Amino acid sequence: MSVLVVGSVALDSVETPFGKADDVLGGSATFFSAAASILTPVQLVGVIGSDYPVERLQPLVDRGVDLAGLEHADGPSFRWRGRYGHDLNAAETLETHLGVFSRFSPKIPDQFRSAPFVFLGNIDPRLQLDVLKQVERPRLVACDTMNFWIQSRRPDIIELLKHVDMVTLNDGEARQLTEKVNLVQAAKWIMDCGPKHVIIKKGEHGAFMFNRDSVFFGPAFPLENVFDPTGAGDSFAGGFIGYLARTGDLSEANMRRAVMYGSAMGSFAVEEFSTARLMSLTRAELDARVRDLRQLVTFEEELST
Amino acid sequence: MSVLVVGSVALDSVETPFGKADDVLGGSATFFSAAASILTPVQLVGVIGSDYPVERLQPLVDRGVDLAGLEHADGPSFRWRGRYGHDLNAAETLETHLGVFSRFSPKIPDQFRSAPFVFLGNIDPRLQLDVLKQVERPRLVACDTMNFWIQSRRPDIIELLKHVDMVTLNDGEARQLTEKVNLVQAAKWIMDCGPKHVIIKKGEHGAFMFNRDSVFFGPAFPLENVFDPTGAGDSFAGGFIGYLARTGDLSEANMRRAVMYGSAMGSFAVEEFSTARLMSLTRAELDARVRDLRQLVTFEEELST
Repeated sequence: MSVLVVGSVALDSVETPFGKADDVLGGSATFFSAAASILTPVQLVGVIGSDYPVERLQPLVDRGVDLAGLEHADGPSFRWRGRYGHDLNAAETLETHLGVFSRFSPKIPDQFRSAPFVFLGNIDPRLQLDVLKQVERPRLVACDTMNFWIQSRRPDIIELLKHVDMVTLNDGEARQLTEKVNLVQAAKWIMDCGPKHVIIKKGEHGAFMFNRDSVFFGPAFPLENVFDPTGAGDSFAGGFIGYLARTGDLSEANMRRAVMYGSAMGSFAVEEFSTARLMSLTRAELDARVRDLRQLVTFEEELST
Repeated sequence: MSVLVVGSVALDSVETPFGKADDVLGGSATFFSAAASILTPVQLVGVIGSDYPVERLQPLVDRGVDLAGLEHADGPSFRWRGRYGHDLNAAETLETHLGVFSRFSPKIPDQFRSAPFVFLGNIDPRLQLDVLKQVERPRLVACDTMNFWIQSRRPDIIELLKHVDMVTLNDGEARQLTEKVNLVQAAKWIMDCGPKHVIIKKGEHGAFMFNRDSVFFGPAFPLENVFDPTGAGDSFAGGFIGYLARTGDLSEANMRRAVMYGSAMGSFAVEEFSTARLMSLTRAELDARVRDLRQLVTFEEELST
């Protein structure tokens, strides 16, 4: 089944202790699509400016990303410039130029409106709500958000939560949104607003999936070398929703597997700049890493003590 | 089989957002013993001052902790006063009075020298080395350390590493000791110094066990209420080494189970002040939490996609 993603398509310039890259593919919808398209067809809605090197999106098209919803607007593309220090945990944003993204108003093409899986990437929550008015009863709607929107549009996010099945956000965002330090309490607070599922991503520390009556934890793969953390969260979401869409199975057992595909995808995303590693990734490599993640946490119960 | 632990026996005064406790049982050897004694006999070597309310150690004795190695010295006991903010991650140390602990020189009683399992709690690494000269070829020696010793006695720690089978330390200590940000690289650095096994504790984010050719990750139990984080790391070590000593099995499969017992023990330790929860804990509750931890990370491989 196909996944509709609405989000940013950007040009990133990134410095890490290991090198730098200028004007490479970036944005939440781009990372999500690069990840999800390994598993299932993707329909992308976003906007680029007149300066965007659109031919560099061709590998995504070749892998089944439908760009019919990618608006070409007059003006400069969304550009982000950031830097990571040695701990690679938090990006220092050096420059953000929203360009045409500042006037983005998602228009869902007719042929995308029946997508069974919808991921609302990190954009203004009022636009996320607007997207939901344009689609026809998806089987699953998930949304992401970020500190900027939590600070400036918290009431809109809380309204949005009434209309989505699932939220993915990182631990800092969960705490900021809910004003709860404890993540179990934060997840309950969010579920009380509406969503049946909350995924709290903790970067190198793994991810929790909270459901109404269960909790699952997906470990992060212990990489010896992390090259560029940009996009790991959106790649996680792409792996997670992509796996659900591919299998069409929303049972808890399958959602647990989907978390592991998300975790594996996030671990590949950080191995190279931009979407490079995701674009070279094969399904066999992905499956192998999920098996490695399983091995990482497998223990047999004692026979007797 | 019995475990010999050498470490501090202190009186802690702790403030958390949820309450405060004055002059309660504390110290690395105390937490370790409270945890390990649920699983196996413990032999404790430490020192207390003339003001120590020794009768409050009686519950430990009742549970099989042999205090024959607890020296009663003239002078004040080791006292620590600390405070935790709402995030409960790091203690702010308000006061440290080493008292008789500053002159501690461990003397291992004859009947303890053949202990098959030895845990060298966080004390001066020169004293940890001295303990190893007093014991007879244990099956497993593990040691802990802390930032203070890494800063002041790094060469002694590196010497100690040549003589121990396993190190347990937290992520910040591992980075400080090895000068590696990446924990996989840090663990390899430590194993290159001698130990076959390195456990890196990440508090609420779980713990890694690195062996020469494998990695295991034990998740932390997602508690909704953490009351007092003091002693969680030593309780982890007590659960881990206590389980190994009880089973006498150093296979990797059993060491993985032991990590889960360590994680479960750490999660109980933080539910009440001091050793209170560990002292009320039953083996059945402990086993149930290990099963819950297993459930937390269990997923079945896909049948087909």
